[in-house]
Amino acid sequence: MQLSEDVARHSRGPDGMNKGKQRKQAMATAPSVSYSMTVRLEVPASGTAVSQLTTAVESSGGSVTGLDVTASGHEKLRIDVTIAATSTAHAQEIVEKLRGIEGVSLGKVSDRTFLMHLGGKIEMSSKHPIRNRDDLSMVYTPGVARVCQAIAENPEDARRLTIKRNSVAVVTDGSAVLGLGNIGPKAALPVMEGKAALFKRFAGIDAWPLCLDTQDTDEIVAIVKAIAPGFAGINLEDISAPRCFEIEARLRESVDIPVFHDDQHGTAIVVLAALTNALRVVDKKIDDVRVVMSGAGAAGTAILRLLIAAGVRHAVVADIHGVVHAGREDLVSADPESPLRWIADNTNPEGVTGTLREAVRGSDVFIGVSAPNVLSGDDVAAMADGAIVFALANPDPEVDPAVARQTAAVVATGRSDFPNQINNVLVFPGVFRGLLDAQSRTVNTEMMLAAAGALADVVHDDELNANYIIPSVFNDKVAGAVAGAVRDAARPVTGTTAV
Amino acid sequence: MQLSEDVARHSRGPDGMNKGKQRKQAMATAPSVSYSMTVRLEVPASGTAVSQLTTAVESSGGSVTGLDVTASGHEKLRIDVTIAATSTAHAQEIVEKLRGIEGVSLGKVSDRTFLMHLGGKIEMSSKHPIRNRDDLSMVYTPGVARVCQAIAENPEDARRLTIKRNSVAVVTDGSAVLGLGNIGPKAALPVMEGKAALFKRFAGIDAWPLCLDTQDTDEIVAIVKAIAPGFAGINLEDISAPRCFEIEARLRESVDIPVFHDDQHGTAIVVLAALTNALRVVDKKIDDVRVVMSGAGAAGTAILRLLIAAGVRHAVVADIHGVVHAGREDLVSADPESPLRWIADNTNPEGVTGTLREAVRGSDVFIGVSAPNVLSGDDVAAMADGAIVFALANPDPEVDPAVARQTAAVVATGRSDFPNQINNVLVFPGVFRGLLDAQSRTVNTEMMLAAAGALADVVHDDELNANYIIPSVFNDKVAGAVAGAVRDAARPVTGTTAV
Repeated sequence: MQLSEDVARHSRGPDGMNKGKQRKQAMATAPSVSYSMTVRLEVPASGTAVSQLTTAVESSGGSVTGLDVTASGHEKLRIDVTIAATSTAHAQEIVEKLRGIEGVSLGKVSDRTFLMHLGGKIEMSSKHPIRNRDDLSMVYTPGVARVCQAIAENPEDARRLTIKRNSVAVVTDGSAVLGLGNIGPKAALPVMEGKAALFKRFAGIDAWPLCLDTQDTDEIVAIVKAIAPGFAGINLEDISAPRCFEIEARLRESVDIPVFHDDQHGTAIVVLAALTNALRVVDKKIDDVRVVMSGAGAAGTAILRLLIAAGVRHAVVADIHGVVHAGREDLVSADPESPLRWIADNTNPEGVTGTLREAVRGSDVFIGVSAPNVLSGDDVAAMADGAIVFALANPDPEVDPAVARQTAAVVATGRSDFPNQINNVLVFPGVFRGLLDAQSRTVNTEMMLAAAGALADVVHDDELNANYIIPSVFNDKVAGAVAGAVRDAARPVTGTTAV
Repeated sequence: MQLSEDVARHSRGPDGMNKGKQRKQAMATAPSVSYSMTVRLEVPASGTAVSQLTTAVESSGGSVTGLDVTASGHEKLRIDVTIAATSTAHAQEIVEKLRGIEGVSLGKVSDRTFLMHLGGKIEMSSKHPIRNRDDLSMVYTPGVARVCQAIAENPEDARRLTIKRNSVAVVTDGSAVLGLGNIGPKAALPVMEGKAALFKRFAGIDAWPLCLDTQDTDEIVAIVKAIAPGFAGINLEDISAPRCFEIEARLRESVDIPVFHDDQHGTAIVVLAALTNALRVVDKKIDDVRVVMSGAGAAGTAILRLLIAAGVRHAVVADIHGVVHAGREDLVSADPESPLRWIADNTNPEGVTGTLREAVRGSDVFIGVSAPNVLSGDDVAAMADGAIVFALANPDPEVDPAVARQTAAVVATGRSDFPNQINNVLVFPGVFRGLLDAQSRTVNTEMMLAAAGALADVVHDDELNANYIIPSVFNDKVAGAVAGAVRDAARPVTGTTAV
């Protein structure tokens, strides 16, 4: 998923105010196909009915994305109009407007997104036809017994003779799904199916969702450990902090396949890639810049760790209590193993205190994985020259990107309707492709740095500019470049020379 | 899988002798495509090289199932010959014979069964193309969030808007795989993949294998319980007795989807269907016949329970210690909950004691799910007139079917090279199709009886005879008939009226 989980978990901004309620006041969004419906209408065959329809949609702030006349008679036309709106309520409004046009009768209204979800988005397919007894005797008994025996004698053959080599389990407990919070395993399933579909689309990987009806750390660890034999990798997804840290750490100790919490590391890799290129645009060096982060959840912590590994020396993190520093009241007595304690010990060498806004003043880079509208245009204007602003809260960023762009040199968001979309889809397919191809038993910081470097390098010098620091998810070079870098970084670790 | 797990677990026959060692002496088997290889050869273009090849294969007891000239020149032909053998060793023997023919040079030898397994037999597919940003925004974020919210508000919508409705988990711990025993989860994977492929082929069901790296009953129960939200049914597979009984019973109490241990119930259903039709052939009634069973493992116990539910009143079961009766030494002090105790309490009203052979004398029906060659032709000859013999141990039955057929009226085995193959593939796809279509939360004896009845009825009166009591697995009426019967039996239980 994208970065919005931190929004749900940290719905109050760093200054302690409840920012969740501010969402409605945020910048207006354009009509989106994700709020799209197809409306069947009957209109009089003569006259201006069709233009009245399109006018009604557009004057309501919607857009017409398709119009098909599906039946035509002397008196009536049947028309299917597909409309994009900005929200479900907005779509309803438009439908009511259409209903009000004289002479128009309204038929079925189909929500395109829901239609796509009917019966689920993925399926299992057999690679071989089973036409007759001969096929059956090879795919199943008795022939399959010889293959089982071969694997029993040499377990590594499972990577050659079974689905293991190309299979990834997408595991969630439904505790932090998108920006929706703890909606449970069944409601999380559409996201996990979508993730599986993206694994196939961008990297040819066979992923299957496992939505767990438990949020107990020990149980989740035991389950993932137990299912590991049939998979070559584990993608943890939408598990809330701080449990996600412990689950991942314990699994890395106990299974012989890579475990990757995409909300943390996928996000961290794409942010590092984008920052690398943004620094190229403003001609600054990663070990010189002063980075201020808003958000200390799963994504924030992972980004920070990877940035430090990549050379960042001056970082300051703020959470809902303000800037994190070793002397802060809630940290003096904190568990020395806690993520926040780690942040205090590894950032803010100058001992900055106070609010996010104060910390941002004069800084080179702002990275937000927190809540909408925690910064104003003035805050961004007070940053250093050549400021870089990544406002990644979804759907409403930490600062209006259009306002930030007035003074910042480079602005990126998590949204698809602004330039420079920071999207995990750029990362996880290629990362797993590389891990699987290398038959890696682990995933480590070096592999993540390699992935970020490869993703940054997809944007050539002659393409690079403030509005193009990161490629599109549909750039067909991305997954291969990331996979190649991860594979090369993984091979020395696994000692594997060929697939 | 098929019935051979009982062979592994009960490799000593009911008379206490170790029968496992007798397998090698069992009836000769015909060449099988499951021991099939393709051999690339270069032979002189002129002369009798090709007929020498085919002669060499056939004189070694193999058969030529394919012959392609893949390149032809003035002096040499390149030929791919596909050969079926009776075992791996036999295939090697044939290859050596081919190597010995003058003028022939041997190229690559490919094992067809292994070739089919390279990279695994199943894959995950996306139902919708993801071509552009619009597709992405509906399949994944942000559009998917609305679908998640709908399910969070009404969890039953998961059956409408996700893969749950058509998904089955194929769960094993690798403890009793085919006749191979406790080979573990990785080596079990080829069987589970094959099972998933059959679910799709015969019933359009999306099944995914979960091979568990634990054989702890509590852990298996906890895992299956936890993964249930994403599936509409659980197929337990190749889990050894007696753990399989407890795991299934506890899961039925704790999950809201049907749990079906195919080795038990799939087998029981197909045996009852076959017995129903065999009784039609010999014109006897199920509540009159005297049934003697060999084997008291998972399959044996389940068959017995279903036969009793179907009306059998006179059953006697023998295990490796002989006939099971309440007064038998090992049973007097047995746990009252143990499966064997249940058998003692529910069979053998006449208090028969002694060996299997003694019990079989004068009986109407013999059902073996035990070990090879526990009965002789004389034992079968001593049965009542119109005897029915189901000798289901795989690959070598309890009695040579050709010998049994000399005196018995109806003979069935688990093998595909004799008439009347008792094969679970006839049952589990249709049973799950029916359960899923009815959105059933359970599977019970009534549904199993309905499945057996529907399967028996696929064979019409004018088709029925001693060599055709059960349809072929490729009979395209089977799955639909079984599914319909199970759906109808399940609907009153679930209270669902429409899918």
